[in-house]
Amino acid sequence: MNTLDIIAKKRDGGELTAAELEFLVRGYTAGEIPDYQLAAFLMAVYIRGMTRAETALFTLAMAHSGDQLDLGAIPGRKVDKHSTGGVGDKTTLVVAPLVAAAGVPVAKMSGRGLGHSGGTVDKLEAIPGFRAELTEMEFMATVQKTGLAISGQTGNLAPADKELYALRDVTATVASIPLIASSIMSKKIAAGADAIVLDVKCGSGAFMADLDSARVLARTMVDIGRRVGRQVRAVISNMDQPLGAAVGNALEVKEAILTLQNQGPQDLTSLALSLGAHMLVLAGRVNSTSQGEQVLAELLASGAAWEKFRQLVIDQGGDPDAIDCPDLLPQAQFVLPVHAPSNGYVAGLPADKIGRASVALGAGRQKKGDAIDLSVGVILRRKIGDPIKKEEVLAEIHTNDKQRGQKIAREVRSAYTISPEPVKPPELIYELID
Amino acid sequence: MNTLDIIAKKRDGGELTAAELEFLVRGYTAGEIPDYQLAAFLMAVYIRGMTRAETALFTLAMAHSGDQLDLGAIPGRKVDKHSTGGVGDKTTLVVAPLVAAAGVPVAKMSGRGLGHSGGTVDKLEAIPGFRAELTEMEFMATVQKTGLAISGQTGNLAPADKELYALRDVTATVASIPLIASSIMSKKIAAGADAIVLDVKCGSGAFMADLDSARVLARTMVDIGRRVGRQVRAVISNMDQPLGAAVGNALEVKEAILTLQNQGPQDLTSLALSLGAHMLVLAGRVNSTSQGEQVLAELLASGAAWEKFRQLVIDQGGDPDAIDCPDLLPQAQFVLPVHAPSNGYVAGLPADKIGRASVALGAGRQKKGDAIDLSVGVILRRKIGDPIKKEEVLAEIHTNDKQRGQKIAREVRSAYTISPEPVKPPELIYELID
Repeated sequence: MNTLDIIAKKRDGGELTAAELEFLVRGYTAGEIPDYQLAAFLMAVYIRGMTRAETALFTLAMAHSGDQLDLGAIPGRKVDKHSTGGVGDKTTLVVAPLVAAAGVPVAKMSGRGLGHSGGTVDKLEAIPGFRAELTEMEFMATVQKTGLAISGQTGNLAPADKELYALRDVTATVASIPLIASSIMSKKIAAGADAIVLDVKCGSGAFMADLDSARVLARTMVDIGRRVGRQVRAVISNMDQPLGAAVGNALEVKEAILTLQNQGPQDLTSLALSLGAHMLVLAGRVNSTSQGEQVLAELLASGAAWEKFRQLVIDQGGDPDAIDCPDLLPQAQFVLPVHAPSNGYVAGLPADKIGRASVALGAGRQKKGDAIDLSVGVILRRKIGDPIKKEEVLAEIHTNDKQRGQKIAREVRSAYTISPEPVKPPELIYELID
Repeated sequence: MNTLDIIAKKRDGGELTAAELEFLVRGYTAGEIPDYQLAAFLMAVYIRGMTRAETALFTLAMAHSGDQLDLGAIPGRKVDKHSTGGVGDKTTLVVAPLVAAAGVPVAKMSGRGLGHSGGTVDKLEAIPGFRAELTEMEFMATVQKTGLAISGQTGNLAPADKELYALRDVTATVASIPLIASSIMSKKIAAGADAIVLDVKCGSGAFMADLDSARVLARTMVDIGRRVGRQVRAVISNMDQPLGAAVGNALEVKEAILTLQNQGPQDLTSLALSLGAHMLVLAGRVNSTSQGEQVLAELLASGAAWEKFRQLVIDQGGDPDAIDCPDLLPQAQFVLPVHAPSNGYVAGLPADKIGRASVALGAGRQKKGDAIDLSVGVILRRKIGDPIKKEEVLAEIHTNDKQRGQKIAREVRSAYTISPEPVKPPELIYELID
């Protein structure tokens, strides 16, 4: 087998075999195939595409490129949850304890934020003392004890994906459905879950800007699951505006706490119940999503989900005082109001613009390894469909740099589009692909 | 301007501007843009193509990436000649002195052989003492004195092309018409000629296997010339079988000498007259190619072309005794006959197979920098259309390794296809593109 022949086959639109894809992935991970050959291959894939069978084989090759977590010691079907990334998306902080409270063990690995999307690991680190980077042994022990752990990646899962992603990022080959789908799924497969619920975000703040491409991505990932023997469901959800009101690490933890105490924003609560219900179905805990939503709503109302979250924080070294009394979480020095320029209705609030505003305040990273400020961010007091009065507060900017905060406040104000006519709030969940 | 945006534009089938192409070529040559980004770009070009305008702009950007030879000190229009490469193609050894003998100065830069195609510089080095690598000053002085010099590349012409070619070679992006055309033309433009006659080879032993792709390549190069202000004509010639009888460095020099003494094979003589006549037309020396061919045929017959070659050899340090008495050129130890397996007619004699046989004997390079044996090669006693009798000699293998020679003899024998019916010899020149 020969790297050039494989590149030429894909260049000419051919379908690669399992052996050819493994040869490429193994050779690249071992440092035997240079970046420039993979770059040419990735561009050929970007333009020519991959069949469903190829995509699944490529996913497996990447999943097998490093460690594979064995969750066998945890009883029952292990169900993972993954979001393709959005703005204000603190759903994992709510769903993981909620599902664990229903008796389904959750061993959740999460990432850090990059660009305008936040990351669960960063958010959890806003809780003083919280250790979001567990060893594999600690991770497994915590799941076995409490039925719940959330950690950054332990071990060396799908290293091929990590390297390929970095290469795609600098060769204009990121936005390819087979490459996106195989990247996500390879990590999930290596992380060992039996079943996976995917939250495919769709809209201005998401990787997939329109419903058609979100559908194709969702179907591709569900199909990969089918081909490699993992049960996968995908929910396509709205990311035209941020989820919930809070964007920024500590601000989002506070909102997650409110939601776990059954006082959160309606959209976040409803998405968490829906994703959680699919997880319960896949775990065999309930027979239908409506039954699942009912079970979970009761666990929210009874305080059981909140108790599970509190236990998670304690187990992973976090200070429970800081969540019992969220004013002890990191706080920004200044809170600047954003005033409505006129009467009317909020017609648009692009998630990407709010995400970038939050990054500019210091809440996120422009590039890997950047330091972040856990206290800063944006609170959206009005969202799409809400009526507004001139001069009332649309949003709050939480900042430690007043001058920068004022600049961002102007940007957030101009991100809002205001209509004189009433506007229908957007649908939250578009559809289920399974 | 941003490398990723340029790659993405080509990836999506867009047309790049002069500024964008120069940014890429300059950045790559300066080492600021890494191989993997250019590799992704080259694959996008391979699949999406380039418009004629883009191809010309890309060519100019590469021509401007290094030194540019100034032939202004030589009076008159300077005409260059270039072959896309074939087997047994010693035409430059004949055409250059022939055209110079007609009073048109020839400042010819040539390359070394790679793969199954030979290179003029290697062939000339079969003449003892011949210096085929002149400095720019020596090169210009020789042209001014004798009206003729043939040298390997002086200075640093089109370094971007050199680097890009090496990258194409390892990323399955060689066989792209805009990339091939811009590669050839960038070097020719940097070498300073006012006009260029291209010999586009077509057939089994050539880069372009069929007439259609040879035509597209020829038209693309003629069009580049038009757009950058150089007059270009392209002759498409047959490379289904080797040109002439000799394949191998010293063997080809001997055949060139015979041809310059008007006793060469008909195909080589006729191609040299045709290409030379186009050069005379472009130089303004004659008004038509038929007039040009007549002038050149007389210079062959009178011995003037041979005298010019002899002067070239002396000027560049070669031993004139070795060309006056070609047995003094490097000779292989063994000459092995290849016998005809049956009566009939030669129906096929694939140039690539004969080229590879010659490389296997040691006459060529598998990769850059390999040492070559100047004495070895193949002499084809019968070519397509020739009647043959069982057991008569089809070809001779000149070798310094008897065992390897015998293996190659069997390969050459099986390269010949024999038909019981008479076979028409192939056309030599398909068409002119200008």
